[in-house]
Amino acid sequence: MSMDKLLEKIAAYQNPTVAGLDPKLDYVPEYIKEAAFSRHKDPLDAAAQALLDFNKGLIDTLRDIVPAVKPQAAYYEMYGWQGMRTLAETIAYARENGMYVIIDGKRNDIGSTMEAYAAAHLGTTAISGTEVSAFGGDCLTVNGYLGSDGITPLLTLCREQDKGIFVLVKTSNPSSGELQDRKLGEKTVYEIMAEMCETWGTQAPGRYGYSSVGAVVGATYPEQLKELRKKAPHTFFLVPGYGAQGGGAKDVAGAFDQNGLGAVINSSRGIMCAYKKDGCDEKDYAQAARREALRMKADIMEEIKEIRLP
Amino acid sequence: MSMDKLLEKIAAYQNPTVAGLDPKLDYVPEYIKEAAFSRHKDPLDAAAQALLDFNKGLIDTLRDIVPAVKPQAAYYEMYGWQGMRTLAETIAYARENGMYVIIDGKRNDIGSTMEAYAAAHLGTTAISGTEVSAFGGDCLTVNGYLGSDGITPLLTLCREQDKGIFVLVKTSNPSSGELQDRKLGEKTVYEIMAEMCETWGTQAPGRYGYSSVGAVVGATYPEQLKELRKKAPHTFFLVPGYGAQGGGAKDVAGAFDQNGLGAVINSSRGIMCAYKKDGCDEKDYAQAARREALRMKADIMEEIKEIRLP
Repeated sequence: MSMDKLLEKIAAYQNPTVAGLDPKLDYVPEYIKEAAFSRHKDPLDAAAQALLDFNKGLIDTLRDIVPAVKPQAAYYEMYGWQGMRTLAETIAYARENGMYVIIDGKRNDIGSTMEAYAAAHLGTTAISGTEVSAFGGDCLTVNGYLGSDGITPLLTLCREQDKGIFVLVKTSNPSSGELQDRKLGEKTVYEIMAEMCETWGTQAPGRYGYSSVGAVVGATYPEQLKELRKKAPHTFFLVPGYGAQGGGAKDVAGAFDQNGLGAVINSSRGIMCAYKKDGCDEKDYAQAARREALRMKADIMEEIKEIRLP
Repeated sequence: MSMDKLLEKIAAYQNPTVAGLDPKLDYVPEYIKEAAFSRHKDPLDAAAQALLDFNKGLIDTLRDIVPAVKPQAAYYEMYGWQGMRTLAETIAYARENGMYVIIDGKRNDIGSTMEAYAAAHLGTTAISGTEVSAFGGDCLTVNGYLGSDGITPLLTLCREQDKGIFVLVKTSNPSSGELQDRKLGEKTVYEIMAEMCETWGTQAPGRYGYSSVGAVVGATYPEQLKELRKKAPHTFFLVPGYGAQGGGAKDVAGAFDQNGLGAVINSSRGIMCAYKKDGCDEKDYAQAARREALRMKADIMEEIKEIRLP
C-alpha cells in the first residue's frame, strides 16, 4: 500500500514532514527568472521554466532529509498548460530522486469523472492500446462532498497500484468551521467525514495500522487534531498550516500516536521562501530551504522524540 | 455581471442548455483519431490533437443554437499537460465563436490558493509586469466545503471582471446524499450550502434577479431541485444529470422560475456521442450532436414554453 511507503520513508528519515512546492513566480530567485526569461519568449513558457528550475534546486537539497513533496496544483494551473507541464516534470524529477509525491489537487466529482481524475493523477490513461501516465503522483488530495461514488474509483488504485489519497476533513483556513464545524445531531460535519475516511479505509488497509485513505486536518485546529487522532485511528493525517499559517510544533503534537506515527506535517512558504527570511544570497535559496527543513524536523521531533514502525 | 451574460444568451437562443465537452478518446470518431495519430508520434500529443479537432467540430455546429459549453477538466487532465493545452485551446475557440464557457473543475482550497485557481481559470496571472490569461473561462464550478475563504477570491473576479461561479450544492450522483442530505438541525447540508450561495451572491448581484454565484443541483433529484428553486431565489442553477445519467425534461422543470429562467441544463455524453446512438456515419458526428441538441432544447422548452428576461 502506498501509504505504507510514505510511513516507511518517514521512519527511515525520522522526519514526519513534507515540503510543499507551491512555486509562485514571486518566490523564485531573480537569477533563475532571468535565465528562464532569456531562454523563452512566451511569458508562460518562461515562467514554467523558472518554476521547474526552482523546484529542481529544492528537490536536490531536500531529497536526503525530507521524505515527500506536495506540489499544489493551483500554482501550476495559474501558469497554464505550460505550468501543468512543469507539474508533470516536477513530479517525475521528485520520484526519480526517491521522494514520495502528494499532488494537492483537492479533486472531486461524480464516479465516472473521478475515474478520469484518478487516471490523470495516480493511474494511467489508455491511448490506442498503450497505458500512458499523465502526472504520475503517489497520492492525491480529494474532497469528499460527493460521497462514496467520488472516492471509490481511487480505492481501486490504492489497492492495485500502490497509491494513496488524503480526504479533506478539517481544513486549516479561518472559515473552515462555517460548514465543517456544524453539528449533525451529536457529530460535526468534519467528524462524519473522518468516519467516512475510516470506512473507505477498510477497503485499502495498510501494514502499519494506517489505511491508504488519509485525511487533511489543519495544524491551526490543535484540539480537533488531537480529538480526530483518537476517533480515526486508522486514518493517516496530512497536516497543513504549520509555519506561515500560524501552527507550531506543540499544535501538531496531538496528531501523532504512541509510535510517533499518524501524520505528515506540511510546510510550503516556510521552506520555499526561507532565503528571504534569512536575508541570505538568493543563490543559496536551496541551502536556506534545507536549513529550514532541518529546523522544522528538529522542532517537531522534539515533541514526538522517535518514530517507530510497529 | 457574467451570469447576466449567460442569461442573455439563453434568452436570445430560447435555449436553457449547455453542451458538456468531456471528450474521452473513446467518444472521438476513428477518422479524427487516425488523422491525429498520423501527425503526432507522442501518444499524449496525438490524443490531445484528436480531442481538440473533435471539440472544434462540435463547437462549429452548436454555436448558433446552444448558448454555452462546459468542458470538464478531468477529461483533459487525464491526457496530461497536452490535454490541458487542448482545454485552453477549446476554451479560446468556443469564446471566439461567441459561446459562454463554464469550466467544470470543482476547484476548492484555502483563500491564498483559491486566488491561484481564480487566476488560472477566470482571471489573469502577472508575469514580469504583463497580465497573462491561462485558461480564460467565463465561469468555474467550485466546491464550498472550505467555507467563505475559498469563495471570496472568486467574488472579486465576479464583480470586477464579469465572471461567474457555480458552487456544488446537491450533486447528481447516487451517493450525493451520504453527506449532502444529512440534517444539521432543521436543515440538510445541501440547504446550508444553498444558503451560503445566497449570502455570497449578495456580493455579486445581477441585473435579472440572479447573482453571479450559482449552484450545481442534479437533475436526478427533481424534488430537491424544485425545493431549492424556492429557497434560493437569487441563485442560478447548473443542472447536470439530464440524459445519460437518467434525468428527463419533467425532472428539470422545477428548476425554472415563472420567466423560464433559473437554470441551465447540461448534457455531455448525450450530445457528444449522439452519432453512436443514431447509427449514422461517424463523419456526421457534429450534425448528429446538433440534432440531439435541438431535440433536447425542444424537450425542455415544451416544459417551460418561453424564456423572458424580466
